[in-house]
Amino acid sequence: MATELTDKARDLLRARTFGMLGIVMANGEPQVTPVWVDLRDDRPMFNTAVGRPKERQMRRDPRVCLTLMDGDAYSYVEIRGTVEFVEGPSAEADIDLLAKKYLDRDVYPWRDPAERRVTLLLTPTRIMGMDE
Amino acid sequence: MATELTDKARDLLRARTFGMLGIVMANGEPQVTPVWVDLRDDRPMFNTAVGRPKERQMRRDPRVCLTLMDGDAYSYVEIRGTVEFVEGPSAEADIDLLAKKYLDRDVYPWRDPAERRVTLLLTPTRIMGMDE
Repeated sequence: MATELTDKARDLLRARTFGMLGIVMANGEPQVTPVWVDLRDDRPMFNTAVGRPKERQMRRDPRVCLTLMDGDAYSYVEIRGTVEFVEGPSAEADIDLLAKKYLDRDVYPWRDPAERRVTLLLTPTRIMGMDE
Repeated sequence: MATELTDKARDLLRARTFGMLGIVMANGEPQVTPVWVDLRDDRPMFNTAVGRPKERQMRRDPRVCLTLMDGDAYSYVEIRGTVEFVEGPSAEADIDLLAKKYLDRDVYPWRDPAERRVTLLLTPTRIMGMDE
């Protein structure tokens, strides 16, 4: 069942904080990688390239955990839920939007011309965290 | 099969960087939480309380992923492997060692007198990462 983001989660998603994306691989091992994130239609969004191991794993099992640390406040927010995949022109544009946010560059500088991008929209099912 | 840490992983484990610990829950969902980390006998170590959901999940499935971001270098190290549990006086002392490292406090200030601590030692099986 979907749940609403907290204000703190929204603030961290809007900030330049990295999201730490947890997924489960086919052999049952966890994997954690940093991702650029933003807030879209009140959902966490991030972007990757089609065909990467991470993307293939999320197609297999769309349950993820996105954890954002608030370095200033010594606290974090953990967002669990399920991702939805958006491809096409908007996904191609999203990686530049994220590069603008995180790098202040108009175009994502590490783009591989051969790759297709995909945007992930996360519907939260559980939000937890810790505040000191 | 165990593998050696890289120098970069060692540096990040010795620094005040948080480890982002990925585990898999009983229902197959991933979970990511920040942990204080250090290097012990050339293995990543961290500490938690006995009986916490995270600890119970690692007893059920000791495969974890510990990812450390290097904020300065815009890069990260991802360490996958299996944890071993150490309880007793050394585990009780370790949380104070970590509080000293991360907070510069001699005693862990959020200690619950009723809890027992456990130290996790991670034997790496795969080390990955990204450098710009």
